[in-house]
Amino acid sequence: MSKGDDTRRRIIEQAAAIFNQHGFEGASMSGLMRATGLKKGGIYRHFSSKQELAAAAFDYAWQAATAARMHDLAEVPNSVDKLMRFIANFIERRPSVPGGCPALNTAVEADDGNPLLRRLALKAFREWRKRLAIIIAVGIKKREIRRGIDPKALATLIISSLEGALTISRLEKRQHALTSVRLYLERYLETAVRSGR
Amino acid sequence: MSKGDDTRRRIIEQAAAIFNQHGFEGASMSGLMRATGLKKGGIYRHFSSKQELAAAAFDYAWQAATAARMHDLAEVPNSVDKLMRFIANFIERRPSVPGGCPALNTAVEADDGNPLLRRLALKAFREWRKRLAIIIAVGIKKREIRRGIDPKALATLIISSLEGALTISRLEKRQHALTSVRLYLERYLETAVRSGR
Repeated sequence: MSKGDDTRRRIIEQAAAIFNQHGFEGASMSGLMRATGLKKGGIYRHFSSKQELAAAAFDYAWQAATAARMHDLAEVPNSVDKLMRFIANFIERRPSVPGGCPALNTAVEADDGNPLLRRLALKAFREWRKRLAIIIAVGIKKREIRRGIDPKALATLIISSLEGALTISRLEKRQHALTSVRLYLERYLETAVRSGR
Repeated sequence: MSKGDDTRRRIIEQAAAIFNQHGFEGASMSGLMRATGLKKGGIYRHFSSKQELAAAAFDYAWQAATAARMHDLAEVPNSVDKLMRFIANFIERRPSVPGGCPALNTAVEADDGNPLLRRLALKAFREWRKRLAIIIAVGIKKREIRRGIDPKALATLIISSLEGALTISRLEKRQHALTSVRLYLERYLETAVRSGR
């Protein structure tokens, strides 16, 4: 990795925390300069615009969030247990980029605004739902999950309820919302999703 | 209402749409001037700061959202049916202020930032959860809802899953996420919450 690549990567890492905590509009040039330790020209040598930097920062933050949530999932053989592990990871593993879920943050800020960031958030949600839906579809095939379950709908329920609870928990600075939703989801997976073979 | 009060109210109404769609940071003075048809001085004759205007706009947007969601709830006698009606209202009734849920939008933007707006979003979520929890607690008392149900936890599940699904639906410009979550919640209320008297 050249020195330029290294600097670029460092800018993205630092900017990801700023954008994820303060949003695209809320991230100021002075904040980005402080975080990276670079002057404006030093940042814009690597990125043509604030939007290009924000897009790279989103990708970085989303990869970090995905790594935390998918951690060790491949090691869990049973599909329902995989979903349980995913839920536990979402709640217990703190991603390396602070500020909550990058997809949710970007979705809420960009749904009536910035089209590039909006597209990235949409892609992130769809990939995430797809990953969970595949786990569920495989589970049905392996008869670990009941046949009547709709993979896309169940994936949507898990994602929606965790994202909503994360918002409330971050606001309250208490785990209550996440813990309540986790309990419901686990009970639901155990009683209505897991195959009763 | 004096002419000054009338102008103030009109500014709040117009500003609520701007803030709810673009956020506190994303709402520009030029956008606020365009929406209200007033010059900067005309707006600041009524509000001491952008933050004071944003706080009044939030209260206005939150009242509009609450009115839509709670619409006709008093007319539904059974507690479980009240929850069902609430869910239907949330999905079907478009509040008069565009831009999605004001509490969610403000929570996501302000959780790492603006303390006044953060406090307003927190208060909104708590009041909302409290309203639903009271419906559930009354339902348990009236034996319409099973005794084992935790009012606060069930209220949290309903709010979290609807808010998460609203985010995805707004991003996808499709109702799928809201429809999926509604189906789950209705089935859950019918099979695990409604008392089997």
